[in-house]
Amino acid sequence: MRAEIISIGTELLLGHITNTDAAFVGRSLAAIGAECYHQTTVGDNPGRIAEAVTHALGRSDAVITIGGLGPTIDDVTIATLARLAGRRLIEHKGVLKDLHAYFRFRRVKTPTETLRQALVPEGALIIRNRVGTAPAIIMEYRDKPIICLPGPPRELEPMFENDIIPYLKKTFNLSGVIKSRTVKTTGLAESLINGKVKDLLAIKPPITVGIYAKLGEVDLKIMAKADDEKAADRNIRKIEAIIRKRLKGYIFGCDDETLEGAVGKLLIKNKKTLAVAESCTGGLISSRITDSPGSSKYFIDGVVSYSNESKENLLGVKRATLKRYGAVSKGVALEMAMGVRHYSCVDIGLAVTGITGPIGATRSKPIGLVHIALVSGKRRISKEFRFRGTRWEIKFQASQAALNLLRKNL
Amino acid sequence: MRAEIISIGTELLLGHITNTDAAFVGRSLAAIGAECYHQTTVGDNPGRIAEAVTHALGRSDAVITIGGLGPTIDDVTIATLARLAGRRLIEHKGVLKDLHAYFRFRRVKTPTETLRQALVPEGALIIRNRVGTAPAIIMEYRDKPIICLPGPPRELEPMFENDIIPYLKKTFNLSGVIKSRTVKTTGLAESLINGKVKDLLAIKPPITVGIYAKLGEVDLKIMAKADDEKAADRNIRKIEAIIRKRLKGYIFGCDDETLEGAVGKLLIKNKKTLAVAESCTGGLISSRITDSPGSSKYFIDGVVSYSNESKENLLGVKRATLKRYGAVSKGVALEMAMGVRHYSCVDIGLAVTGITGPIGATRSKPIGLVHIALVSGKRRISKEFRFRGTRWEIKFQASQAALNLLRKNL
Repeated sequence: MRAEIISIGTELLLGHITNTDAAFVGRSLAAIGAECYHQTTVGDNPGRIAEAVTHALGRSDAVITIGGLGPTIDDVTIATLARLAGRRLIEHKGVLKDLHAYFRFRRVKTPTETLRQALVPEGALIIRNRVGTAPAIIMEYRDKPIICLPGPPRELEPMFENDIIPYLKKTFNLSGVIKSRTVKTTGLAESLINGKVKDLLAIKPPITVGIYAKLGEVDLKIMAKADDEKAADRNIRKIEAIIRKRLKGYIFGCDDETLEGAVGKLLIKNKKTLAVAESCTGGLISSRITDSPGSSKYFIDGVVSYSNESKENLLGVKRATLKRYGAVSKGVALEMAMGVRHYSCVDIGLAVTGITGPIGATRSKPIGLVHIALVSGKRRISKEFRFRGTRWEIKFQASQAALNLLRKNL
Repeated sequence: MRAEIISIGTELLLGHITNTDAAFVGRSLAAIGAECYHQTTVGDNPGRIAEAVTHALGRSDAVITIGGLGPTIDDVTIATLARLAGRRLIEHKGVLKDLHAYFRFRRVKTPTETLRQALVPEGALIIRNRVGTAPAIIMEYRDKPIICLPGPPRELEPMFENDIIPYLKKTFNLSGVIKSRTVKTTGLAESLINGKVKDLLAIKPPITVGIYAKLGEVDLKIMAKADDEKAADRNIRKIEAIIRKRLKGYIFGCDDETLEGAVGKLLIKNKKTLAVAESCTGGLISSRITDSPGSSKYFIDGVVSYSNESKENLLGVKRATLKRYGAVSKGVALEMAMGVRHYSCVDIGLAVTGITGPIGATRSKPIGLVHIALVSGKRRISKEFRFRGTRWEIKFQASQAALNLLRKNL
């Protein structure tokens, strides 16, 4: 079964936005064993949309269009394809109801323009959008499905996973599976990870291993193609076991797991509570921790003390320590961690102080210098780091290192 | 002049990487007034590469291929296009020299595979790669240039800016400039913004206005093509003035400005200091504010009080208020803002409390309900919001609304 992706949007051609949808859909198609040999992008232009879809239908079994379903006059995908397939546009009662419900929830009168989104080609299959306003539409033309999806990723992704994949599997009787597993690490540079798994990266299909470096994280992605899920899982587990052995201590999770999520699980498991005092990370650690549902069970307080005064007043850092060692020092990090722990009556206090730039550096304390401290029971741990990058990159790497220090001590 | 982009790489089709190159090249082409109506992605497959390039040459004046110039046997772009154009591959002395120099600098013996990268189509124009190993190649076919660029962005981008743009300008005699300006708004839904500027969105080139909705933000992008920068700027200013008049109060900045940056500027201008108390946003507001360099001038403290106890202890919220109205209420938001303001001795206290889900909702307090309060001088402002989306989306939208409330009160 061969599918083809057509992204629609002048903003894509102009490079105002990057086409992450095509990557997502490409990945999802590969995962169910559907082939995808072409991706095309055209603007919001009826002639070129019709031409691209016609061309694609000539060589593929299904066409997936992305974008151009919005409420504005620029959005011409549905009208164009209805005309191409010779179908009338009719008002869909269910979509209309959803539209009104969407705006009622927001306490806003349904805008007139939006009503266009309830016009769908006669006989088309409608897939409800539970996040935004434009439904996905599947219409047949020349005995092949044209699947029209809205562009915003947070609308497209759940619809594709919950509705389009089951539809494609059933319609094209797709068997055989490709499964993947991503093993996520932090704390070791890409080149060093690479050196430890070089032989695995050279493995040939049906099993492959890829390495992907992100800010403060290196992922290894294992992919296995097999007749059934069991066989694919078996092959993945074999490789995963080798990776786990070699990268012990650096792996924090798999697939959708995040470092903050992994830390949260460990806190729940060990029945520990946490409070965080942040200076240079400015609330990012607290924000990441509270990204996890249920974090109120273990996360009690966060304090962002950006000034020396607030380090003294809120956290009880000693003026002498600040004076003697400076705000970015091991001593201050430790006192911040002790202060927030004491204050919030929690098991673990975590603290970060550092210099993210562009100002604030001195000869002995460069931009990127970060001190992280953890206080738990009788343990007093502090670590010094030096990160490189922009202000935000240093901030993120510091939050990553702090969360990882916490993980390793749970 | 019309150019077309063909991205080559199976990893793009499989969605292992996102196609940022196409966006960059699209943006760069628009900036010199070259039209680009099609972007295509194909795998590292000679047949499909040749077909895509032939198809593109039939409707465009120049074809730009990206990727497939690496040293491995997967990389077939150059060999395929040389065959298509009936050219021999010859070893290029200059490229060979660069290759050896590249590896000598790294103190590594030049790998044998890499020598393939010195094979170029006879008569082609070579553009040196000063970052990586693959040169860019321009070859003529059917009197039109095919421009082949390497895929890694840090190699492609400088080559495109320094060599390809001057080449295109000269070859196609491109004069004139295209300038753009993005006016950013928050606080009004896309459909409502759309209704207010419908006529502007319909303007035809050389001036165009586009609308782009993001989470908690709607942008209007004005583009103007003109003979020189001055004329383009003048046209942009005219449209911008109309937009500013119609969307007064919702505009927080332009181009690279962020909402947190705009708030920071206003705080500095008005010589005000700020402290933030967050519940459901979990530190995100503090983190966003401290993303701006120099934020220590106005941002004094942040408190993330996730539990009722910490709302009482750290912020002095009254137990009676918590009991009577619940943690997610107007009263608690106001007491949080007053508490953090008093505690940190600042001018403005900002507070947020809400329900981000997936748990915590009740019949009268659904997921997405957020109360935001601002206390400054004698002002006591509180607002209720209802957001939709995932936990993170609600969190972000709440941070956006809080920053916007602050902006409007500065």
